[in-house]
Amino acid sequence: MCKTGHTGVCLNVNPDRPGSAYGYVDMGGWVGGQAEYVLVPYADWNLLKFPDKEQALEKILDLTMLSDIFPTGYHGCYTAGVTSGSTVYIAGAGPVGLAAAHSAQLLGAAVVIVGDMIPERLAQARSFGCETIDLSKGEPKDQIEQILGVPEVDAAVDAVGFEAKGHGSEADREAPATVLNSIMDVTRVAGKLGIPGLYVTGDPGGVDEAAKQGSLSIRIGLGWAKSHSFATGQCPVMKYHHGLMQMILNDRAQIAKAVNATIITLDQAPEGYEAFDGGAAKKFVLDPHGQLAA
Amino acid sequence: MCKTGHTGVCLNVNPDRPGSAYGYVDMGGWVGGQAEYVLVPYADWNLLKFPDKEQALEKILDLTMLSDIFPTGYHGCYTAGVTSGSTVYIAGAGPVGLAAAHSAQLLGAAVVIVGDMIPERLAQARSFGCETIDLSKGEPKDQIEQILGVPEVDAAVDAVGFEAKGHGSEADREAPATVLNSIMDVTRVAGKLGIPGLYVTGDPGGVDEAAKQGSLSIRIGLGWAKSHSFATGQCPVMKYHHGLMQMILNDRAQIAKAVNATIITLDQAPEGYEAFDGGAAKKFVLDPHGQLAA
Amino acid sequence: MCKTGHTGVCLNVNPDRPGSAYGYVDMGGWVGGQAEYVLVPYADWNLLKFPDKEQALEKILDLTMLSDIFPTGYHGCYTAGVTSGSTVYIAGAGPVGLAAAHSAQLLGAAVVIVGDMIPERLAQARSFGCETIDLSKGEPKDQIEQILGVPEVDAAVDAVGFEAKGHGSEADREAPATVLNSIMDVTRVAGKLGIPGLYVTGDPGGVDEAAKQGSLSIRIGLGWAKSHSFATGQCPVMKYHHGLMQMILNDRAQIAKAVNATIITLDQAPEGYEAFDGGAAKKFVLDPHGQLAA
Amino acid sequence: MCKTGHTGVCLNVNPDRPGSAYGYVDMGGWVGGQAEYVLVPYADWNLLKFPDKEQALEKILDLTMLSDIFPTGYHGCYTAGVTSGSTVYIAGAGPVGLAAAHSAQLLGAAVVIVGDMIPERLAQARSFGCETIDLSKGEPKDQIEQILGVPEVDAAVDAVGFEAKGHGSEADREAPATVLNSIMDVTRVAGKLGIPGLYVTGDPGGVDEAAKQGSLSIRIGLGWAKSHSFATGQCPVMKYHHGLMQMILNDRAQIAKAVNATIITLDQAPEGYEAFDGGAAKKFVLDPHGQLAA
Repeated sequence: MCKTGHTGVCLNVNPDRPGSAYGYVDMGGWVGGQAEYVLVPYADWNLLKFPDKEQALEKILDLTMLSDIFPTGYHGCYTAGVTSGSTVYIAGAGPVGLAAAHSAQLLGAAVVIVGDMIPERLAQARSFGCETIDLSKGEPKDQIEQILGVPEVDAAVDAVGFEAKGHGSEADREAPATVLNSIMDVTRVAGKLGIPGLYVTGDPGGVDEAAKQGSLSIRIGLGWAKSHSFATGQCPVMKYHHGLMQMILNDRAQIAKAVNATIITLDQAPEGYEAFDGGAAKKFVLDPHGQLAA
Repeated sequence: MCKTGHTGVCLNVNPDRPGSAYGYVDMGGWVGGQAEYVLVPYADWNLLKFPDKEQALEKILDLTMLSDIFPTGYHGCYTAGVTSGSTVYIAGAGPVGLAAAHSAQLLGAAVVIVGDMIPERLAQARSFGCETIDLSKGEPKDQIEQILGVPEVDAAVDAVGFEAKGHGSEADREAPATVLNSIMDVTRVAGKLGIPGLYVTGDPGGVDEAAKQGSLSIRIGLGWAKSHSFATGQCPVMKYHHGLMQMILNDRAQIAKAVNATIITLDQAPEGYEAFDGGAAKKFVLDPHGQLAA
Repeated sequence: MCKTGHTGVCLNVNPDRPGSAYGYVDMGGWVGGQAEYVLVPYADWNLLKFPDKEQALEKILDLTMLSDIFPTGYHGCYTAGVTSGSTVYIAGAGPVGLAAAHSAQLLGAAVVIVGDMIPERLAQARSFGCETIDLSKGEPKDQIEQILGVPEVDAAVDAVGFEAKGHGSEADREAPATVLNSIMDVTRVAGKLGIPGLYVTGDPGGVDEAAKQGSLSIRIGLGWAKSHSFATGQCPVMKYHHGLMQMILNDRAQIAKAVNATIITLDQAPEGYEAFDGGAAKKFVLDPHGQLAA
Repeated sequence: MCKTGHTGVCLNVNPDRPGSAYGYVDMGGWVGGQAEYVLVPYADWNLLKFPDKEQALEKILDLTMLSDIFPTGYHGCYTAGVTSGSTVYIAGAGPVGLAAAHSAQLLGAAVVIVGDMIPERLAQARSFGCETIDLSKGEPKDQIEQILGVPEVDAAVDAVGFEAKGHGSEADREAPATVLNSIMDVTRVAGKLGIPGLYVTGDPGGVDEAAKQGSLSIRIGLGWAKSHSFATGQCPVMKYHHGLMQMILNDRAQIAKAVNATIITLDQAPEGYEAFDGGAAKKFVLDPHGQLAA
């Protein structure tokens, strides 16, 4: 997999199945990365070397985003075929959604539209030039038409995953396939859908028996009629991190600002989690040794 | 769409929605192609010119397959990323499945495995060098492992669509998501799934309310965990037909033989339909004026 | 060719050979476009429709660039593989070079370096954020190293063509292969070279017998050792113009500013030619009826 | 480079420049591979593991070709864009040319035409289904027209490199750019040229001063007018060897037969070299310990 660039589904870091992650069940048993120190397997292959330490320290908050969220958002847009002049819809304005929205801009999107239900997150998306739509007010198609003049975009990204809620009056209800079905609805024929948002193979707390087994009720007929392509899965970070690093080091990407990266100490982590669960439009960055804040 | 090669979702041949087909509800109102004569819209763009009439007449039965079934099967394999050395699973040994199986060979597949429940169709697939598995005996994964030594293939094609039945003991039951779920199960991580098999936006006779609206219960979590990509929709025939014509005219493809093309008169059409519904391993070709048979 | 997107080498507009252009010898006999009116062959296919007339009139100077120079510069970068984070060298700061430099930015280049010998043109390149090097001072490799810290870029574009002069002390001498050889020199291994700059099949005023027949002395061994890829030829405008139009209409591209588009009347054309020949850093736009200036 | 798949220009095996090879000047100082034993740098990354030893031993002569010649020929065709239905011209019927010709078939070429001057080599190309043209009788264009009905192919491969001789009456003369110029001549507009044939950065025995510095007189204007793309350089073997291995192990490729692989002992090496220099249509394989012959 490494030889073919699919570093997100490495065959050697997880005895249970391909791919791995810090601090997840069933993902290789690697203890979480939200810690004072982190163990890096195959570090000679996995680490990205910065050209210059001093320069890197000046951009350290942005560069931190290279470990996961920036490549993940970028991967969503890249696999959705976002290119010069695309109109793009990003479902979700959490950190991955905001990273995807900024990535869409970097890839040359003509218009980036971000949907969410939390006003603070939508305000954050607008702060760097995105259009926004409030999903608590209904399906996105009409609002997209008001922005673009047409009800469909060229490309869409699901930055939410299975933890989605319904739209409009259903906004309080768990509805794990909402986003998937919605992005098919708003994407034009022959469009591509990037799906970095997580879908799980099983969800013990799923809304019904099917969801507990990872099966969702998907309007596949709609996507088929539109000749859609779907790209799923964990981001192959190494495919993108060198280029994105270059953009950061040369002031071409402002990812920390886009996701509202906020430095906290390890002691402040519980408050950070709480704020995040409450929908804060912030990406908290743990700084155990006070190096970033300096 | 024509300028970008997406000829399968033409915006100008159907007032209801992009894309069109002969003789389908909701597909533009073009009367069926299984007729004595057929009307070709935008014929100056749509028709493929053969280099030499005499040569074409010698290969007419193979060339007839260029109008739909050969490009469609090829598209399934192409979008599944089949290339030199791939191991490929084709779900379904109807005409599209057999065309996909032959296309996989033409694209350089190392091993082509075809799954179906009808012995005659499986025999037809074996007649041109495919491996086969009988889905009435259960899920394909075990049988694939017996053939390949590993339980997964590099690429898979769904040549069945929503009219699928269950596998194994469920083989008599309508189970419209069976094939989609099955091809995720048997495809390796980072693999691609080509889905030329039809999924509809609504099915009045669907197994449940969701199916009636074109929603199927899909194990999307499984595909996501494997970083699968999915390509759906009607084939953009013009993307492939010139190259496939060249293969036919130079004896590099034997598509008529692969799908067991069988010439019948217009009067024999009802028998042809009946035989096809009964699972005959034949692609019937109507020859109203006796030109092919000559 | 149209069906495969290669609109730059159309087979039907020129009896002599594929491809065509206004006002060139051997390019189909179409009278020049620098005129009061212009004849558009196959207009139903060739024209790009703007979504809204009022909106288009507000951006008319930028949109004018879609007819040739903007897609051509973009094509150079696109075929050179410029993407997020690339370091890029553009040889030549004439209108096509400046359009390529801006396109590199739009494609996400981390650093864009433009080389030329005319100070005014280099100043124009710096005006929109490019780095520049003065080729009258020698080969570009050293100057690139001073900018990047390494002597090679990821991608390079030849926006000059066969009318190149030598570098450094050779700057007064015609040296038609200078740019080709130079971009091989400064591009890293496995890099791509985009060559929108014109090379002709014959040049009656060529520097030697070989040049008169369109043969140039090229350091192909250098490119081969570096595994370079080379993309040549006239731009397939239709491949890019819709996306670039979208960027203009949404204020994502400032192409008129980048190339210093300057409106003149038909009567002023001779002065415009003269200024252009003198190295003015301007792209003159003829406005026969005073519509753009309004 | 490894992370991006460009294994042919590895940055770590040669202090002088990227890329390396056994037994070449300036290629890293690795002693030649035509020896009893060979040292493999970074063997954990570089070696290809066969799934089953017994199975591998049965195909050992074919599998030996994976170390260089088969991927190199395949790379030439792959970078030339050979796909289902292509018409292809291969310049040169030495081992790399024959490997390219077989690769073109595996990639689905409709017609493969091989050009050389040595009757024995042309006969070898015909033995596995290629068309051939004798370059001692003149430029290939006319002969291609006799075969195809049109004078141009879709794709061409230069399997000769700088050691080319002239065509027709010039057949005894060194003419290092002959093949490059010839493949531009016979390839259609928008075609691609794969150039695995070696071009050197300097040739002490070159025909003139320019050739001694690796500069050749190339008809770049012709390629430009045809919008050709050129792909050069040493093959990134790891990009292809797994897939080609799969084709060999499943009897889908007969590369040993195509290149007429002939086993000799180490003692017979001098005779092998001599025969090869004399134009024998054989790929000699050294078998120091008599394992292949067994």
